[in-house]
Amino acid sequence: MTRLFMLLALTPALCLAQSPADSGPAPSNVGNAEYPRIHSDLRVTFRIEAPEARKVQLVPGMGRVENNGYNGLGKDPYDMVRDDKGVWTVTTPPVVPGFHYYWFLVDGVPVNDPGSETFFGFNRQTGGVEVPGPGVDFYLPKDVPHGVVRIQPYHSRITDTVRTAYVYTPPDYDANHDARYPVLYLQHGGGEDETGWTRQGHANFILDNLIAEGKARPMIVVMDRGYARKPGEPPRQQWGGPASTTLEEVFLREIIPMIDARYRTIADRDHRAMAGLSMGSGQTFQITCRNLDTFSHIGLFSRPPDQDIELKTVFGGLFIDAGAFNRRVHLFYWNAGTAEPRIYQTGKALTGALKAMGVDTVWVESPGLAHEWQTWRLALNDFAPRLFRKP
Amino acid sequence: MTRLFMLLALTPALCLAQSPADSGPAPSNVGNAEYPRIHSDLRVTFRIEAPEARKVQLVPGMGRVENNGYNGLGKDPYDMVRDDKGVWTVTTPPVVPGFHYYWFLVDGVPVNDPGSETFFGFNRQTGGVEVPGPGVDFYLPKDVPHGVVRIQPYHSRITDTVRTAYVYTPPDYDANHDARYPVLYLQHGGGEDETGWTRQGHANFILDNLIAEGKARPMIVVMDRGYARKPGEPPRQQWGGPASTTLEEVFLREIIPMIDARYRTIADRDHRAMAGLSMGSGQTFQITCRNLDTFSHIGLFSRPPDQDIELKTVFGGLFIDAGAFNRRVHLFYWNAGTAEPRIYQTGKALTGALKAMGVDTVWVESPGLAHEWQTWRLALNDFAPRLFRKP
Repeated sequence: MTRLFMLLALTPALCLAQSPADSGPAPSNVGNAEYPRIHSDLRVTFRIEAPEARKVQLVPGMGRVENNGYNGLGKDPYDMVRDDKGVWTVTTPPVVPGFHYYWFLVDGVPVNDPGSETFFGFNRQTGGVEVPGPGVDFYLPKDVPHGVVRIQPYHSRITDTVRTAYVYTPPDYDANHDARYPVLYLQHGGGEDETGWTRQGHANFILDNLIAEGKARPMIVVMDRGYARKPGEPPRQQWGGPASTTLEEVFLREIIPMIDARYRTIADRDHRAMAGLSMGSGQTFQITCRNLDTFSHIGLFSRPPDQDIELKTVFGGLFIDAGAFNRRVHLFYWNAGTAEPRIYQTGKALTGALKAMGVDTVWVESPGLAHEWQTWRLALNDFAPRLFRKP
Repeated sequence: MTRLFMLLALTPALCLAQSPADSGPAPSNVGNAEYPRIHSDLRVTFRIEAPEARKVQLVPGMGRVENNGYNGLGKDPYDMVRDDKGVWTVTTPPVVPGFHYYWFLVDGVPVNDPGSETFFGFNRQTGGVEVPGPGVDFYLPKDVPHGVVRIQPYHSRITDTVRTAYVYTPPDYDANHDARYPVLYLQHGGGEDETGWTRQGHANFILDNLIAEGKARPMIVVMDRGYARKPGEPPRQQWGGPASTTLEEVFLREIIPMIDARYRTIADRDHRAMAGLSMGSGQTFQITCRNLDTFSHIGLFSRPPDQDIELKTVFGGLFIDAGAFNRRVHLFYWNAGTAEPRIYQTGKALTGALKAMGVDTVWVESPGLAHEWQTWRLALNDFAPRLFRKP
């Protein structure tokens, strides 16, 4: 028996660990809300008032099969316990640091925690808790020059709607009137929207930090909406299905021309990248590989394995002539967490097969991470420094 | 009996009026959500699935006394009716066009509508429904040049936090590298945050439209957070209490210098305005009147009557020398809706007394409107064209 274990077994240390002194409000809480609280050992305490409820659970926000029924907060719903005032509480075991979707199930009705900010996911506003990772600060706002994220409305003739792009411009953008910048188009996942990479992903702070350290080239990052349909077109399957051709049209005929017109871009294929997570990786795969005259850098984060692809025939046999592909594509990057098993295994197998065909492919994995935003923050942090390095 | 009434009484016209053909999803719905639905006669149908619930109500989101227990959606909670599948529904009578906060009360627990976007209000993420007003489009994104709203992080030494300003820059800002612009500082209400004027208020579209029509001078609009406390300082009363001095310090020593450094402002008092709604009007009143070397235009929208002021003594007797005040202040503007009675009556009385003292004061009222965003959209639309007209 180690000394530490003895201490835990013989003293009220565990009780102390649960005291407020050893915990603090999550960074994702609203205003002065005290709950959820993060404990120093990464347990999290959740609380909701529901005096009349008969059963209340905490539900880790899980996607479907990609997540293997798991996010870093846990696998199954946690039963919460009622006190005599009708306040329900639960403390989880230590969780994985990062951002986790969650909600309460109050007598079967999903309820967002009023003490927490919400984030667009699962096709609705959803609760989320930010669990700081000890010593991990690459996605936090450090005391470095900050870029801004611009909420950019534009009229889409194709869809007959007003769409919104979130556009990151780097810290020196406003000061350097003559500078032009390469552009990364960065797509969210299924059920999320154009706010995801900023609010859940902290893409702006990741870029600010990389640029301040000289690790990434200053670039514009365009985060648009991964849904598009023409008037009368039925809603499409959003989860992992093939990206709609309408979205491809909107990108090529509306989004990219709008960005090149309104922002000081370097408007050529060598300085245009696209990446996306989950559903967004499928959109990226289709839109880049079918339009290599427009894009030269490709990033697929946590690509769902739903559509098996035949590497010899997909995209008109694009990968058959590996030499030609390698000359045109400056970066072909895949990333997944090891705790999203089907995605991880499929991605590893596909990139292995691509390499065997002679296609220059980068494969990076995040140990222990699931189909979650911490995986995608790490992916962006690893991907962005590799962009726009060819002269 | 009029012909119309006969028609209603004798035919199934009311049933037709309730059919989907006569209604559509609210503009504030998420994705493909069908409910809430707005009917052509401005009735609104709400729906939520809660099979195990015993009682479900629709609650119009009301502030406290300022609202007189009323928003444009209604006064009291509406009981909803359960169908045999556990779906609860209610259709309101015709409502006031505009934006209305609301939530469901499911066995006593407040629940946001999963079919609707949420908006920061009541110190949490809250449901809201947008009811289009027939022929009213001054706050909609028209096909005109659009400015952007920049999410601008900055480090506040005073509060030891990273704060966020939402900064509107007008459509021509990026193209005119040498142009400089006047600045309006625009504050949200109690329980809301820096996102309110963009998401609930559509301030950016109101300015875009005014600028396109030549009615307002292109300006920068800075929408910051109406809360500030120093490390160790206790949370302050947020509703209508006196603006904290900390916020005043943050404005004068951090926000304004940051904006003047990062944006192409005309950095003098003649080109600096401040306005705010409800709690934000109290902050505006204090921060401008105590700092007339910094501000020259003042806008008070729906000022709560909580603190009676003595016009002869407030702000060190500022209003005693009306001539001096009038020479320094280019615009002293008050606005309220007639359906927020205490605010309306107090504002009307105070501005009357100010005028009697010789103080140049503008008083504008919005007939039939309550303590709600439609009132403040109209106020901004009326206020912005009056700004920065003196050479």
